[in-house]
Amino acid sequence: MQCCQWCAIFRSPLWTIAAPLFGKPLKKPLVPGLRGRFYCPTNRLIKISGEAVPAVPADVTPAYLAIDWGTTNRRIYVIANDGTMLDTIRDDRGVLAMAAGEYPSEIAAIRDRLGDLPIIAAGMVGSTRGWREAAYVPAPADLATLAGAATRIEEQRVTIVPGVSLLTDTRADVMRGEEVQVLGAIVAGLAPADALFAQPGTHNKWVHTQGGRIADFATTMTGELFALVKGHGILAGMLDGPVADGPAFRDGLSRGSGACDLTAALFGVRASVLLGRIAAEDAAAYASGLLIGNDIGAVPDMEGQTVYLLSGGLLADLYTIGIEQRGGRVVALDSHAGFLAGLHAIREHLS
Amino acid sequence: MQCCQWCAIFRSPLWTIAAPLFGKPLKKPLVPGLRGRFYCPTNRLIKISGEAVPAVPADVTPAYLAIDWGTTNRRIYVIANDGTMLDTIRDDRGVLAMAAGEYPSEIAAIRDRLGDLPIIAAGMVGSTRGWREAAYVPAPADLATLAGAATRIEEQRVTIVPGVSLLTDTRADVMRGEEVQVLGAIVAGLAPADALFAQPGTHNKWVHTQGGRIADFATTMTGELFALVKGHGILAGMLDGPVADGPAFRDGLSRGSGACDLTAALFGVRASVLLGRIAAEDAAAYASGLLIGNDIGAVPDMEGQTVYLLSGGLLADLYTIGIEQRGGRVVALDSHAGFLAGLHAIREHLS
Repeated sequence: MQCCQWCAIFRSPLWTIAAPLFGKPLKKPLVPGLRGRFYCPTNRLIKISGEAVPAVPADVTPAYLAIDWGTTNRRIYVIANDGTMLDTIRDDRGVLAMAAGEYPSEIAAIRDRLGDLPIIAAGMVGSTRGWREAAYVPAPADLATLAGAATRIEEQRVTIVPGVSLLTDTRADVMRGEEVQVLGAIVAGLAPADALFAQPGTHNKWVHTQGGRIADFATTMTGELFALVKGHGILAGMLDGPVADGPAFRDGLSRGSGACDLTAALFGVRASVLLGRIAAEDAAAYASGLLIGNDIGAVPDMEGQTVYLLSGGLLADLYTIGIEQRGGRVVALDSHAGFLAGLHAIREHLS
Repeated sequence: MQCCQWCAIFRSPLWTIAAPLFGKPLKKPLVPGLRGRFYCPTNRLIKISGEAVPAVPADVTPAYLAIDWGTTNRRIYVIANDGTMLDTIRDDRGVLAMAAGEYPSEIAAIRDRLGDLPIIAAGMVGSTRGWREAAYVPAPADLATLAGAATRIEEQRVTIVPGVSLLTDTRADVMRGEEVQVLGAIVAGLAPADALFAQPGTHNKWVHTQGGRIADFATTMTGELFALVKGHGILAGMLDGPVADGPAFRDGLSRGSGACDLTAALFGVRASVLLGRIAAEDAAAYASGLLIGNDIGAVPDMEGQTVYLLSGGLLADLYTIGIEQRGGRVVALDSHAGFLAGLHAIREHLS
């Protein structure tokens, strides 16, 4: 189940490909017999004919390392000059796992393993909790803005991409790492320059782009709040059942959507179980629906809106259901593809 | 600073007294020279003339023990036949601190200390996590309903008051212990029979009474959510500053009131500190305002509404500010007085 030997992004049964020939992104399983010319997120034109092969010989010379260095996890990619991804590893050496002075030895270990190459990193590694602060760039911001404000650690041959901030009279928000995925998805042709993105996870980012720039965004703590109430307090021990689509999840979606009394709705999970309104084993699915419904419900004008979803797996499926219930349409994108395209474009701006 | 030797309720600088002569409850400091005839929440008519003295000799014979037995704390009162409170102790032997089989020995220890008397208890002690379940009484419910559904543990001479449940097509809610305070406040003449009560704390209860019965209520997890985000996750370590009234608290109130995007507003606390929109030492006050504002903002028709607040100290002050900002009026009540009056009335229904 592999697209081509060079492209690890496509090494999954379901994959996202941008097909300019069809004028829209497609999400298809890789099946024997699939044929056509597709524009790969790593910017290589490939032919797929049963067993896919690269249309042009790939440049297999490693040129740099790209790191998506988050709070709890880290993904490192080995990239060729033309943007081809040659190798990738993922581990739990996120920023929280690192001591302050540990970064130089960590960088040396990465190079020992993957090659003595320049490094471009994005994410929480550039925060005050990370290695070296790369101060936020205020929105609106595009890839050139990010490249122009990058922090270079010359002696280590490391460049850290800054995050993006938003500050209005009433709202303050920040992002680090997500901006590369969003702008990368646009530069790779996976999404239009004016679009609404969602990035479900511990902290979900709703990002509005205009003209290929991040114009506005809002962070919701949906995943974190679920983990908090599941692990601590009055709901602890009640939310250990499966989280999946079903009547309980959809009931939760309805209760949460547009709810301006979220903490009352959350206490209602406990009361609903105690009073037999929902089965104990459905409580987690209901609570998940409640929080996801509340998250989606706070986005104005969802009816007829297209949401470019930079997420995969169950979470993408659950958000898709919630968005479609509100009359929106979902285009699922591969967040790794977005990140790689974004970081590669930043590298070109840097050079 | 003591009203009379019999009444521990009034042993605080600010105290709540019902004054039928003035036709409304009053909240006054006990000052030398204060004179008048007041109706005390423990149902004794007292004269206050400089140093207050009881108008009638109090019945000082202990008749029963009343226990407000909650999740984390417990308060035990020694009560005379006429409702006079003779003694009280408070400790942290709440339900969570008790092993399942420990209650009989605990009851024996209480009687060793405070007297071999019948016991009436309310609160989480009657939950499935407590000693013996006293099944919820569905709303609407009054004190007679509670007394009629009480669970008697004959061999221990203990009566456990049930909680109240609410179940509609869209909402489920439960309470245990708060119903005694609310209905007790009404029976003591501290609040009218048709009223809106609030009971700020870990879980705040908004209770609507009609004709002296609990008609509708909603539980919000305001205090718990503050503790969760303060202790865990992305805001941990940012909310250790003081919580008090001030510009940051009021800014939070405004952001939280009516907000249907609570988790985005919470993430905004972090972003606001990172971007210098609010000072780090103001973050806790802002977050507290956010959550309290959201709690109050979800109550419909607050304009011109009177809220009977069964709470004391800083929390009562902060809720009062929030309620008044929305055009409501607050009458602060003593929750202990409500509990005692309610439990005493239940005892009379039982006998």
